[in-house]
Amino acid sequence: MHNSEIDSLRRRLARRFAEHLADEYILRDEAERRPYECDGLAAYRHLPLLVVLPGNIAEVQAVMRICHEEGVPVVARGAGTGLSGGALPLEDGVLLSLARLNRILAIDPDNCCARVQPGVRNLAISEAARPHGLYYAPDPSSQIACTIGGNIAENAGGVHCLKYGLTVNNIQALEVVTVEGERLTIGGSGLDSPGYDLLALMTGSEGMLGIVVEATVRLLPIPERAQVVMAAFDDVETAGQAVADIIAAGILPAGLEMMDNPSLRAAEDFVHAGYPVEAAAILLCEVDGDNEAVSEEIARVRQRLLDSGATEVRTAMNDEERARFWAGRKAAFPAVGRISPDYYCMDGTIPRKHLPRVLREISEMSEQFGLRAANVFHAGDGNLHPLILYDGNQPGELERAEEFGGKILELCVEVGGTITGEHGVGMEKINQMCAQFPPEELQLFHAVKAAFDPQGLLNPGKAIPTLNRCAEFGAMHVKAGDLRFPHLERF
Amino acid sequence: MHNSEIDSLRRRLARRFAEHLADEYILRDEAERRPYECDGLAAYRHLPLLVVLPGNIAEVQAVMRICHEEGVPVVARGAGTGLSGGALPLEDGVLLSLARLNRILAIDPDNCCARVQPGVRNLAISEAARPHGLYYAPDPSSQIACTIGGNIAENAGGVHCLKYGLTVNNIQALEVVTVEGERLTIGGSGLDSPGYDLLALMTGSEGMLGIVVEATVRLLPIPERAQVVMAAFDDVETAGQAVADIIAAGILPAGLEMMDNPSLRAAEDFVHAGYPVEAAAILLCEVDGDNEAVSEEIARVRQRLLDSGATEVRTAMNDEERARFWAGRKAAFPAVGRISPDYYCMDGTIPRKHLPRVLREISEMSEQFGLRAANVFHAGDGNLHPLILYDGNQPGELERAEEFGGKILELCVEVGGTITGEHGVGMEKINQMCAQFPPEELQLFHAVKAAFDPQGLLNPGKAIPTLNRCAEFGAMHVKAGDLRFPHLERF
Repeated sequence: MHNSEIDSLRRRLARRFAEHLADEYILRDEAERRPYECDGLAAYRHLPLLVVLPGNIAEVQAVMRICHEEGVPVVARGAGTGLSGGALPLEDGVLLSLARLNRILAIDPDNCCARVQPGVRNLAISEAARPHGLYYAPDPSSQIACTIGGNIAENAGGVHCLKYGLTVNNIQALEVVTVEGERLTIGGSGLDSPGYDLLALMTGSEGMLGIVVEATVRLLPIPERAQVVMAAFDDVETAGQAVADIIAAGILPAGLEMMDNPSLRAAEDFVHAGYPVEAAAILLCEVDGDNEAVSEEIARVRQRLLDSGATEVRTAMNDEERARFWAGRKAAFPAVGRISPDYYCMDGTIPRKHLPRVLREISEMSEQFGLRAANVFHAGDGNLHPLILYDGNQPGELERAEEFGGKILELCVEVGGTITGEHGVGMEKINQMCAQFPPEELQLFHAVKAAFDPQGLLNPGKAIPTLNRCAEFGAMHVKAGDLRFPHLERF
Repeated sequence: MHNSEIDSLRRRLARRFAEHLADEYILRDEAERRPYECDGLAAYRHLPLLVVLPGNIAEVQAVMRICHEEGVPVVARGAGTGLSGGALPLEDGVLLSLARLNRILAIDPDNCCARVQPGVRNLAISEAARPHGLYYAPDPSSQIACTIGGNIAENAGGVHCLKYGLTVNNIQALEVVTVEGERLTIGGSGLDSPGYDLLALMTGSEGMLGIVVEATVRLLPIPERAQVVMAAFDDVETAGQAVADIIAAGILPAGLEMMDNPSLRAAEDFVHAGYPVEAAAILLCEVDGDNEAVSEEIARVRQRLLDSGATEVRTAMNDEERARFWAGRKAAFPAVGRISPDYYCMDGTIPRKHLPRVLREISEMSEQFGLRAANVFHAGDGNLHPLILYDGNQPGELERAEEFGGKILELCVEVGGTITGEHGVGMEKINQMCAQFPPEELQLFHAVKAAFDPQGLLNPGKAIPTLNRCAEFGAMHVKAGDLRFPHLERF
């Protein structure tokens, strides 16, 4: 589209939106639109055509109806904390912010659920439920800021998803506005719902099937007690094996996290968590439940860690120490940010039993690419977050980091894992989808998308690559023998 | 189709199948086909055009390719224990039995999963996993006979699904043969999988999206101990309230089952479970986990039941008594079969807090229709199984029973529940889907179906009603003011 066409489309859309929304919620000026040009994956930026902030479901419906009539693409956005570029706007598309739909509509302690608008922050749900002895389990690291709508779009996880599941396991029902502006209720209060499981289909669909405008989420009783054990190891592979041993022993921790030496050292320097800085790796294992059960389980965990070769095992003496142990883990990303000009956060998943092998190979690749890697992960469910350290100002380092990252994801697929654990595909990993899925399955994805959005107006170009794109990428793949990231392409 | 056309189609298909399958696995004769004419919903019967029993995935693919080329519909069948008619054959369609794909391919204790063929019986998985201290959690009442393929098709539940989830929460990956005969791998070992959640979409899709030819199921550690408490109540509503109280207290039992007087009395007469036959209702509450935790939780459950008005609370003294308490519950359906010539088993779900109201209204309807009702249900998750007692030989009783059943399902929808808990929609409840879903959502279901099966060859006519059917049904609904069952229609 020419600039003049873009301008005239912007004016026409703004005029039509103004029939339904107050003027202050239609952002036309470049300066107003600028904050929306990217999400947490800041390497990708597009200035959206127009930003709208509807205040209720009827306004969302009006926006969708108008965009549908005009054939204009729509990208929905929560808090913009996503790490895979799922909320990256389009220059010829509307950015639909759900930020104003931020009310908790009901807390229902009888049925252990809450009805919330999509712009409600993840942590705000647990805060509102606390007086009833309840909380919302999924806890992505960004839970102070990220919203439930974005959590649903990306099927967010967190430290506790090993025991309590991902977002999809913790929602009961959704109110959804379709691409045509129709309102649908999906799911319900029962464990099962007749018909196809549209609730699961919608969850993690990255804004490509519909706009979530309300969610009923499951609340769980706050455990009587939580306790954490920290274990140190002399080498990373032994720590990886200990994770497998704990799970194989039938223990289901509320959280089971691993940090290698570069990340635990960075975290220790940053927040003084009390980590043993000489350890090759540490595990943090949290157990929750009834008082008695926790005591017994902690004893089992300690024994198992020692049997698996831990050189030191420490149980937090009190809540303060427990909070400090976790503070280090939660600050790991910014801590690594302090020791390197830039880092690239990966997100892959592997079968737990391959942890030792994958850790060893990442370490070998690190030497091969001449780039440091810090490993932080949800070890219990095999969800890796290797951080690749690089300096964007050194020519070639970004490219090497991306190549290194691609190799890690390739390795994940090779051992039977996947290219994403909890951050979604978005823009970041769209090419890797070609390595993950055969053309038949990608075609099925497109057919499912078309069932909801035949014209492809909802967040087009994200998450599911076209076969064309894969063909180009596949050719590149065969030639170069590796997986590349899309920002090496011009688009 | 004329009979001669049917015969010639049968001959042509059999000839083509014989190029891939041994002759004994292609059933042509009426006597051979007769056992496949219905599943557990015996009120519906159709003799299939042809029955095939492939022995491996390649043979399933060959059958699907041929049927696709010939434009012949295919109905897949597991053990045929389904209660909603999902495996009801078509007279012009092939019945595809997965019974010969009955091998357990691998038990993987390291990753707590098992790879199994679809014809493996539910209970056989737990039996094979037991030496590793593991088991497969979903336990439908038919678990001795029903197969994992059928469990996946219907998203089966069971007594333990309150704590451990439905089938969809306990599978990791599926191998699927598409309507064109292509083989796809869906899901994987990670908690999340990139792309749309086809695994959840396939689960519970009643054979309408593809043929499951292999499944990787999650295994859980066998709990150290399980204990059950039985509580008696003077009236059904108090028992219903006790269920809500237990859950609201933050207790998550492994099973929480309720039986009213007619059902507990029938069960007692049949298996001598030790139930108090004068009670208006009993609850069975099972707790599992570590030894200590179970003791503590049982004490809490007992206290809560007494606080909620139980007149008697008994903890099983030993494993034998525990088995006897459950034997009564598990034998409830056949026990009711002994006190009435016929019964009609309903399956609806309601929000737990409406249990007392729904129980009261079912009891009022029972008087109004002049038919006894026995209530047995998975109370913890609000999944009702009212049994309507009637005599098919008394003119008008079947129709009254169906009308009564329709009213119960209407009531479920009215209080915010659904028309099925765990038995699926199949043929039985297809009209009630029109009451459950608006036309927009039914259209979305059809569009999803078309993404997998554009010609509608996979189990056509089941689960998702056409808008046409709903229009006819809707007209009837408006006129008569009730929900009717499809066997009142001629088809």
